[in-house]
Amino acid sequence: MRVIVDGKRKNFRSVWMYDDTVFLINQRLLPHKFEIYKSESYRTTADAIKNMVVRGAPAIGATAAFGIAQAILEFDSEFDRFQNYMETVTNIFYTTRPTAYDLFHAINFILKRIENVKDMKNVKDIAIKESQRYADESVERCKSIGKIGEKLIKDGMNVLTHCNAGALGCVDYGTALSPIRFAHYNNKRIHVFIDETRPRMQGSRLTAWELLQEGIEHSIISDNASGYFMQRREVDLVIVGADRIALNGDVANKIGTYEKAVVANENGIPFYVAAPKSTIDSNCISGKDMEIEERNPSEVLSMWGLNEKSESMCIIRVSPKKSKARNPAFDITPARYITGIITEDGIYKPDEIALLNNL
Amino acid sequence: MRVIVDGKRKNFRSVWMYDDTVFLINQRLLPHKFEIYKSESYRTTADAIKNMVVRGAPAIGATAAFGIAQAILEFDSEFDRFQNYMETVTNIFYTTRPTAYDLFHAINFILKRIENVKDMKNVKDIAIKESQRYADESVERCKSIGKIGEKLIKDGMNVLTHCNAGALGCVDYGTALSPIRFAHYNNKRIHVFIDETRPRMQGSRLTAWELLQEGIEHSIISDNASGYFMQRREVDLVIVGADRIALNGDVANKIGTYEKAVVANENGIPFYVAAPKSTIDSNCISGKDMEIEERNPSEVLSMWGLNEKSESMCIIRVSPKKSKARNPAFDITPARYITGIITEDGIYKPDEIALLNNL
Repeated sequence: MRVIVDGKRKNFRSVWMYDDTVFLINQRLLPHKFEIYKSESYRTTADAIKNMVVRGAPAIGATAAFGIAQAILEFDSEFDRFQNYMETVTNIFYTTRPTAYDLFHAINFILKRIENVKDMKNVKDIAIKESQRYADESVERCKSIGKIGEKLIKDGMNVLTHCNAGALGCVDYGTALSPIRFAHYNNKRIHVFIDETRPRMQGSRLTAWELLQEGIEHSIISDNASGYFMQRREVDLVIVGADRIALNGDVANKIGTYEKAVVANENGIPFYVAAPKSTIDSNCISGKDMEIEERNPSEVLSMWGLNEKSESMCIIRVSPKKSKARNPAFDITPARYITGIITEDGIYKPDEIALLNNL
Repeated sequence: MRVIVDGKRKNFRSVWMYDDTVFLINQRLLPHKFEIYKSESYRTTADAIKNMVVRGAPAIGATAAFGIAQAILEFDSEFDRFQNYMETVTNIFYTTRPTAYDLFHAINFILKRIENVKDMKNVKDIAIKESQRYADESVERCKSIGKIGEKLIKDGMNVLTHCNAGALGCVDYGTALSPIRFAHYNNKRIHVFIDETRPRMQGSRLTAWELLQEGIEHSIISDNASGYFMQRREVDLVIVGADRIALNGDVANKIGTYEKAVVANENGIPFYVAAPKSTIDSNCISGKDMEIEERNPSEVLSMWGLNEKSESMCIIRVSPKKSKARNPAFDITPARYITGIITEDGIYKPDEIALLNNL
């Protein structure tokens, strides 16, 4: 992704590895400060996942892959101790963010490639190469989603997106934001409505920051206002990401996605989901099989941001101290509200997903 | 409304007048601090409206009525100067919150009652009596809405509300919250989902505070989560307030109301609007005739609340400094999504509003 650093345009991924160091765009500090977090040991890389220096399933996956490679590089004992060592290491990563499916996927991707290799030098070489490949393939998938999805965006369009399904949450390009980037690269004039996305404000904080770096025109709106702009036909197209896709085409995504889909449908506005095929969960027949995580109520009762007076990050409480809150993190959008699903090898109707999974 | 002060239950209105002093619950400090704002001159009363010590159309109306009475009591010059004086006074009030219709309504209510009275002593007596009557009538209307609307709420129900259409925004009882209060007074077990209501958080800050004082069980949710709870049938009934009602039954209310109505409709959940008949605007044939105010984008880009560390109120910026925002304050809910409108003399279907207005 393009990032403006000291007035100059540079290209960054959200995560990369060089020698034995893992580099991350520190997402905890965005949008207020752009800082690269350097992790020189697998333990600090695991901490970075846990503490949300990096977030977004594909980005977490790639970070875990690099972290595992780091751990392998750090290993300097007898080979017969390697298996025990790796059990400790993988456990440390597994417990960082237990709900991110990509984390498991990435770790297993690396482990599988070294499982029958008996020579430590070889194991280390493979770990470096394969973790790099994991990240590169992730980037290629998002790039492809962008090029395919871009065709849906016409010159002059207003596109609405929810949450951050951007380059920060992936390794690069993003899922929902990738078609928007490519439309912009192809000189289409576009304007993006960004739902701020309470409670964690990934729209306000991260999507707005990404679009600002690219010079893509955008307006942040409260989540309450998206219906208003759809009703007035100021929105031409909605694109969101997905956390999980069921075989019947139901989609789990950030809380609020369901409301946007219903209101888009009511107003005849196309509603697209952008996600790599790896998001399809063949264990889920429909959305009913998906469990929804309820997160800490404090996310709803409080907020954090930059106190401009003191120039420091600050948490504020908005609600009465004794009030309770409920905080579901995701919701299920039934397939009937979804116009199409943009994947790395084409756009599918929700009812084609089961077929796609069988191929 | 019941308010717990130093562990004791007391009864308060959001605004009242005693001798020549106007008293207001200071809504700027809620929910963090309960404090009564005393205004001993009409100028500080006008300032209190302007600075949002008091908010909510009916509460602003009553405050303006008391403020006008205060101004009349303060007048101590020759009677032939009175008319000029009152022009200055009314202009000061008119420019405090120019979009609040109740403000004009309340001021004209008092002015009309003194227009042919030539004796200053009489004018002062009438001003005191009529401003009191204005507030009392407002309370009676809300009380009646509560008793009528209460019948819709069955024991064990989960009710969703948006924004604060409560006692704070009225003189007492509220509109949408009045049926909820009366259901509670009648010992029905209820639970209220409160949309936090970005950007100004009237749900989190004010509705939650009011329900806490009454001991009514509630959960604050992000505006994004209301669809989730409706989809899962955890919501039985939606009640919201109204800023203006068109003759065809379209309703203007706080931004986000439209989305909630569409999603309630999609899930077959009854969606009621509670408002006094004075909210019907006979100049509006439909919602298309209503202008929507766009407020300062800073409300979307920033937030304010209590910094618990320093125990002081604090503003934080969430978004990038250069990002733009749009901030419509209201939206229009078409009549077809509204199950009924709860007024002080009965519940009407939206298509009965035109008839009601003619009576």
